Amino acid sequence: MANICRLDSRDPGFKATLSQLLKVDAEQDDAIEAACARILREIKAEGDTALVRLTNQFDRMNISRATELEIDRHEWLAALNSLPRLQRLALEAAAERVRSYHQHQRQNSWSYTEADGTRLGQQITPLDRVGLYVPGGKAAYPSSVLMNAIPAKVAGVDEIIMVTPTPDGIRNPIVLAAAAIAGVDRAFAVGGAQAVGALAYGTDTIPAVDKIVGPGNAYVAAAKRRVFGTVGIDMIAGPSEILIICDGKTPADWIAMDLFSQAEHDELAQAILLCDDRAYLDAVEAAIDRLLPTMPRADIIRTSLANRGALVLVKDLQEACDLSNLIAPEHLEVSVADPDALLPLIRHAGAIFMGSYSSEALGDYCAGPNHVLPTSRTARFSSPLGVYDFQKRSSLIQVSSQGAKTLGAIAGTLADGEGLHAHAASARFRLKKVFE
Amino acid sequence: MANICRLDSRDPGFKATLSQLLKVDAEQDDAIEAACARILREIKAEGDTALVRLTNQFDRMNISRATELEIDRHEWLAALNSLPRLQRLALEAAAERVRSYHQHQRQNSWSYTEADGTRLGQQITPLDRVGLYVPGGKAAYPSSVLMNAIPAKVAGVDEIIMVTPTPDGIRNPIVLAAAAIAGVDRAFAVGGAQAVGALAYGTDTIPAVDKIVGPGNAYVAAAKRRVFGTVGIDMIAGPSEILIICDGKTPADWIAMDLFSQAEHDELAQAILLCDDRAYLDAVEAAIDRLLPTMPRADIIRTSLANRGALVLVKDLQEACDLSNLIAPEHLEVSVADPDALLPLIRHAGAIFMGSYSSEALGDYCAGPNHVLPTSRTARFSSPLGVYDFQKRSSLIQVSSQGAKTLGAIAGTLADGEGLHAHAASARFRLKKVFE
Repeated sequence: MANICRLDSRDPGFKATLSQLLKVDAEQDDAIEAACARILREIKAEGDTALVRLTNQFDRMNISRATELEIDRHEWLAALNSLPRLQRLALEAAAERVRSYHQHQRQNSWSYTEADGTRLGQQITPLDRVGLYVPGGKAAYPSSVLMNAIPAKVAGVDEIIMVTPTPDGIRNPIVLAAAAIAGVDRAFAVGGAQAVGALAYGTDTIPAVDKIVGPGNAYVAAAKRRVFGTVGIDMIAGPSEILIICDGKTPADWIAMDLFSQAEHDELAQAILLCDDRAYLDAVEAAIDRLLPTMPRADIIRTSLANRGALVLVKDLQEACDLSNLIAPEHLEVSVADPDALLPLIRHAGAIFMGSYSSEALGDYCAGPNHVLPTSRTARFSSPLGVYDFQKRSSLIQVSSQGAKTLGAIAGTLADGEGLHAHAASARFRLKKVFE
Repeated sequence: MANICRLDSRDPGFKATLSQLLKVDAEQDDAIEAACARILREIKAEGDTALVRLTNQFDRMNISRATELEIDRHEWLAALNSLPRLQRLALEAAAERVRSYHQHQRQNSWSYTEADGTRLGQQITPLDRVGLYVPGGKAAYPSSVLMNAIPAKVAGVDEIIMVTPTPDGIRNPIVLAAAAIAGVDRAFAVGGAQAVGALAYGTDTIPAVDKIVGPGNAYVAAAKRRVFGTVGIDMIAGPSEILIICDGKTPADWIAMDLFSQAEHDELAQAILLCDDRAYLDAVEAAIDRLLPTMPRADIIRTSLANRGALVLVKDLQEACDLSNLIAPEHLEVSVADPDALLPLIRHAGAIFMGSYSSEALGDYCAGPNHVLPTSRTARFSSPLGVYDFQKRSSLIQVSSQGAKTLGAIAGTLADGEGLHAHAASARFRLKKVFE
């Protein structure tokens, strides 16, 4: 039996219970912080020497030179060629769909010219070099390689450097195959805070990058936070979440399995269903009880649903949308007959899955949109990983001699008001023509 | 006499000297960190009570209720009406130009439909509520109010909450006038880490926001770093910088004054000139010596130029562009006869000022583009503040029944490969029609 919490939005204590349920403990661990600070200091000071020492220590390897960490491209291609045919086709099909979707996100430079000849705009350029962290061990997901590397390549990033820990020297062939498909340029068998440090500061072997993306454990997250500013980083992800708004017309088994597909990630994952039909919630609860024993990861799912899941009876679908905006979920399934009617009511969500056929799992792998999404209510202010994360903008300002007169007068007045006299003088110098 | 360093890119030690010059000490101060952590804890736990206590303490005020902190809209309008006419016209003209430029940055939702009826896209929406920090005292810049608030309003942000410290209860009328012009919605006389905490967590008086933008001192910066994740934040700015590439054809006085306009910000500001003409560098140095004594902020300029400035002789303008890409400056003046010829060579810069009339001061106030720009080499991976910082995206995924068959097969295979069986089952459930 699953033990998932049943709530009713009409209950007086509902809001308090919900906010308790949503709470995530984001405390930073002092021991991890201290270890990361030390590791980053060592990498910065000693470069490859520290990288070799720390990798031998943490990943139980036995290398003597940092160059041994590079994973040769022949090995990726061998990994790709050794994949079962179906798996390779699926990876390639997913990559192609992800690439095709992200091409819609490419932004172009723009400018406009004013009547007096002054030209204004923005020049949009790709980042030069990006580091991609890929976890080792159980959480080594080839789909994550595709989702992080492809938008960078679509943006025009010149070089993607992948790092992935290989404890005991064991390399994951599916990850290497995915790297080959996604267009990764170089790969190194190194992980943890030491890999983040090497990417941020550069060593003789690992080139410094401009931004580091990709998921990782608490050490990787802490190290990314610390190097932010030296390099760009993507979001630090919290536990994964799904919120489902259902009108009671989707098969209950489908919705139960969608909740499972989130809950199976880990014990902290969150799966919540909002519905205005009590009988349907009963049906989903029954489906959960019936389907749970068939799941290989039943224990994780059971814990996740018991601690962080909920089946919530709402007054109507409008209220469901209001609650969804409060929760600002990473994944939102709008599993209703007419999702377009609700879409304008949705203000915050990482990804919106519209209609009963749009299960989150399709988005995780191959629908096309990115599966790296804002968690823990950050969809209120942040966006899915995208091509725009690998492009940056430079303002363009080309003032004509006539424009310099108009603008110089305004800037002069404002600079005077702020007591910045060199600003004022610099603006006013341009009121006269060159060599006048 | 100014004492600005002269460098020659042909000297063997050049790269090392340059990298020494560019170094910024970004160490975090432990005492500030501890104070901020305590202040944020107090605001989170006690809300308004702590806000009143801390504001009375740090700003030498004597209020008894937090509601007294709100600055009434009548006071802003009075401030606006009391501005000298020229200053008001200049602020309004600047605001209008900034608004008009930023309207070009607005992004729209998009979607496309595939042959099998599957629809994919992104829904783009504004943030609900934004907090704007405006420093008090000397660094109270009305232009900064315009530059931060206007892009948010253009993005469609519903409510902008401004906070600004008023030491000894003294309110800055120009800042209030700028708030009225920029479309700020509410304003509170509160600053420091306590204001950041109030905006991030919300109190009974100050509503919680989704993102906090605007410059501030070390306490404000430290507090913003700490609340990041609960809310979004803009960049933490380092010292301001200008790099000028000049072909020797711009009047030397203009270039000298452009260097001053950066150097006058503070002693850590950086102003560097690259030119391929030694005689022109001599002329600029002479202009610096001649003009410096006329500057009200001569002491700050002198220190800044002596410690962090440089006049650099380069081989040619191509090399100047290469060095510029290495430096990735916040402000780049391409003060040459044909700036369009060099533009394609520029990869990283916050703002590019093209041609001799485009002085940085014009961009600081009224050209239109934002003056909040990436500093300390972060232009390698980040962008000027813009409308895009106040919009966020939600992926849209609407899979057709036919699409669910194609995608379900791919997702099922990939989920099997990652050992995520609920994902696989959820995808495969959709291979059959509803109620089949």
